[in-house]
Amino acid sequence: MPSSTKRILAKYTPQYIEKEVLIEGFVQARRDHGKLVFIDLRDHSGLVQVVFNPQVSEKAYEIASELRPEFAVSIIGKVNKRPERLINPKLESGTVELEALELEILSKAETLPFDMGGEVLSLELPTLLDFRALTLRHGSVKPIFIVQASILEGFRNICQKLDCVEIVVPTIAASATEGGAEVFKVNYYDHKAFMTQSPQLYKQMLVPVLERVFTIAHAYRAEPSVTTRHLSETTQMDCEFGFVNFENLLDLLEISAVEMLKHVEKNCKALLKEFKMEPIAFGKIPRLTLREAQEIIFKEYKRDNRSEKDLTPQDEVDLSKWALKKHNSDFVTVTHFPTSKRAFYTMPDPKNPEYSLSYDLLFKGVEILSGSQRINDHDKLVSAIKERGMNPADYKMFLMAFKYGMPPEGGFSFGLERITMKLLGLNNIREASLFPRDMERVDERFSRSEEKEKVFQKKKD
Amino acid sequence: MPSSTKRILAKYTPQYIEKEVLIEGFVQARRDHGKLVFIDLRDHSGLVQVVFNPQVSEKAYEIASELRPEFAVSIIGKVNKRPERLINPKLESGTVELEALELEILSKAETLPFDMGGEVLSLELPTLLDFRALTLRHGSVKPIFIVQASILEGFRNICQKLDCVEIVVPTIAASATEGGAEVFKVNYYDHKAFMTQSPQLYKQMLVPVLERVFTIAHAYRAEPSVTTRHLSETTQMDCEFGFVNFENLLDLLEISAVEMLKHVEKNCKALLKEFKMEPIAFGKIPRLTLREAQEIIFKEYKRDNRSEKDLTPQDEVDLSKWALKKHNSDFVTVTHFPTSKRAFYTMPDPKNPEYSLSYDLLFKGVEILSGSQRINDHDKLVSAIKERGMNPADYKMFLMAFKYGMPPEGGFSFGLERITMKLLGLNNIREASLFPRDMERVDERFSRSEEKEKVFQKKKD
Repeated sequence: MPSSTKRILAKYTPQYIEKEVLIEGFVQARRDHGKLVFIDLRDHSGLVQVVFNPQVSEKAYEIASELRPEFAVSIIGKVNKRPERLINPKLESGTVELEALELEILSKAETLPFDMGGEVLSLELPTLLDFRALTLRHGSVKPIFIVQASILEGFRNICQKLDCVEIVVPTIAASATEGGAEVFKVNYYDHKAFMTQSPQLYKQMLVPVLERVFTIAHAYRAEPSVTTRHLSETTQMDCEFGFVNFENLLDLLEISAVEMLKHVEKNCKALLKEFKMEPIAFGKIPRLTLREAQEIIFKEYKRDNRSEKDLTPQDEVDLSKWALKKHNSDFVTVTHFPTSKRAFYTMPDPKNPEYSLSYDLLFKGVEILSGSQRINDHDKLVSAIKERGMNPADYKMFLMAFKYGMPPEGGFSFGLERITMKLLGLNNIREASLFPRDMERVDERFSRSEEKEKVFQKKKD
Repeated sequence: MPSSTKRILAKYTPQYIEKEVLIEGFVQARRDHGKLVFIDLRDHSGLVQVVFNPQVSEKAYEIASELRPEFAVSIIGKVNKRPERLINPKLESGTVELEALELEILSKAETLPFDMGGEVLSLELPTLLDFRALTLRHGSVKPIFIVQASILEGFRNICQKLDCVEIVVPTIAASATEGGAEVFKVNYYDHKAFMTQSPQLYKQMLVPVLERVFTIAHAYRAEPSVTTRHLSETTQMDCEFGFVNFENLLDLLEISAVEMLKHVEKNCKALLKEFKMEPIAFGKIPRLTLREAQEIIFKEYKRDNRSEKDLTPQDEVDLSKWALKKHNSDFVTVTHFPTSKRAFYTMPDPKNPEYSLSYDLLFKGVEILSGSQRINDHDKLVSAIKERGMNPADYKMFLMAFKYGMPPEGGFSFGLERITMKLLGLNNIREASLFPRDMERVDERFSRSEEKEKVFQKKKD
């Protein structure tokens, strides 16, 4: 191809009627109609139809006959208006087609292991993931990650409005972030180290430095279970604020969630429609304590979980239904979880220390955010660490921030993949991660002995 | 404090003359002058002077006498204009002071281990890092990370202008990204796994999906050395582009670097001045092959490195001096490194396969970016893997992306901490990382036996 010709994108072809243009992309489909070959060419802007006519270019026509799906090609052609009856209203370029003058194959593709041409990709999840490098290209999969990018952007936008400074915190740490056994060990120059379970301790340490911070961080949980809602490596969107009280924090988390998702709805309107999602219900978000929430579950759904220490997955689903019906809200804020069920840095409620100044935000039936007011007194924090059977010496750097003055503070953490999943109505969180990590897979599935298989099936929920 | 009073920030106090306001922050310094106590109060907007007069509030005055640096406090006071001769032009709030009516201590601080009150923090690097949770608060340290946040923002802005979609890629992988031994091992549910040396392979796989992508990712290198330019966990800012040639890539990397740093210069003008940095020289960036660069080093600096396979650190410094002098550019692009010295996915130059279509970007004497045109042919890629003694089976998912059609593509990767370091004239990359990781430290220094100490001293450069 003459490198002097500037490539244009598929969706702009209608602006070049009767002109010669260069387009580059992938063969989405080929159709042979007697003495003509048609292809749908896909680039990152969309599709355009290309016709190869031996009368126009014998050579291009011949090469075109070799084309198969996913060949990468470069084409020079003339943009022709389509006759009225052949206009394709589903395509941005549907009023035109490209008459090929030259064709170059940039990269061949093997025959695909399954049909990628349909609107739906009918594959079981394991196959979808086994062929991830291929299946991500499908029109029903790729948009998930365009929406995900928009969530990230929406999050950062609201953080900036809230005066938060972006921070980059490490993921290798000398001790487990939140205690517990569910942590990955790293061999760090012959020292023992861990992958952080969250950016929590680091963002807290930054409060006396920058006061309001945010970070988008990877978090690692070695949970020995396989559910539709958990991954071993996830993406957290975290904020932390100094000089705030519990009420401020509830306001901040709700405004963050709402503004972030309004951004996505505005910027991904067409894609959300493709996923057949109803507009998000942005009614005033109800705030319930855990016990109030459990009362509602008892009254409205006849399940008595009033002494449980947490919401069950079904409680989360039902509470969200209730909030939508009663408050026209796809969100519910639940507060005051038992202190013993939350991480050591969570502030107990001074009015009743059995419960804590903690919160979760539910969205369409699942928890997408978690957080709390934090203990900001050094000595109380040391006590809380000891009470959980942990060693304050393992938290030396963290405790230093409190030793030298820590104002009232708190924050929260959104789960990116969970938001993506619920926003698009996906069934499994693995569909919301480009390359999901869990106990059975790192890109490829691990092979399992029969014995391991038994243990595995048991741990599945 | 009455929660109804809305807190205002220090820098806005001059807008509230004669009014009562609530301010909250940290005690930067306390000065006792006879029957008056003065404090400099610091919040995330800056400083404001507060005066405690027993005639105004005996109680506030008494509490104020207890204050020490880094106490977190909440103060209600009246904003008074300062007399002309007492105006402090260095402070945004320098035309006023706050006369305290009420004072509440939110959090006490232990006596600091060293003076934090001066403009300079005169500590050796190990001490600076041993007390990281404290030293980050200092006025000479904190701005480094405000500038760093601006670099991240500048990078994302140019990525968006270049039509790149943000992706989130995993950091736990089943095989070493680029081969080599310098990789951290993770115990992953009893399977062997590795921390990714870069997001490289994943961003490449996304090219047929989204065509143009960017990611800000952690990268892990278990290099057994301690230099002023290397960390074990770093932050990379990566782009990857499909349907591009080598020339396009050189244009793209240069526009990215320039636009990113122009953004920082615009948004952090005052901070860059505090670091006494000259404005960045944005003259046309010279492009040299490695051999051309070595010729210049030979001619101008009398060192004959013309058969070396890479630039030496001193070469990088001298080339940057040359570029500034000859081209008024703080950047130099160096291309065509020997194929054998670059990663397996690097495209050899078809005109002379001994050299590759690779590039580094130097900025003020150090490499801040690296990248290349990639091999996009499946079979050639398999050969390249084998030639390096690696096993293509370890790259199954990566190779799948090439099996099903990969257009010409390439990209690059910026090192966030290195850019921060050079932009602010810092001596050591550790100063450019909030919580730096290296072979001797994860927050706290590892204890070392005498024997290990010897090995360590040897490996230091």
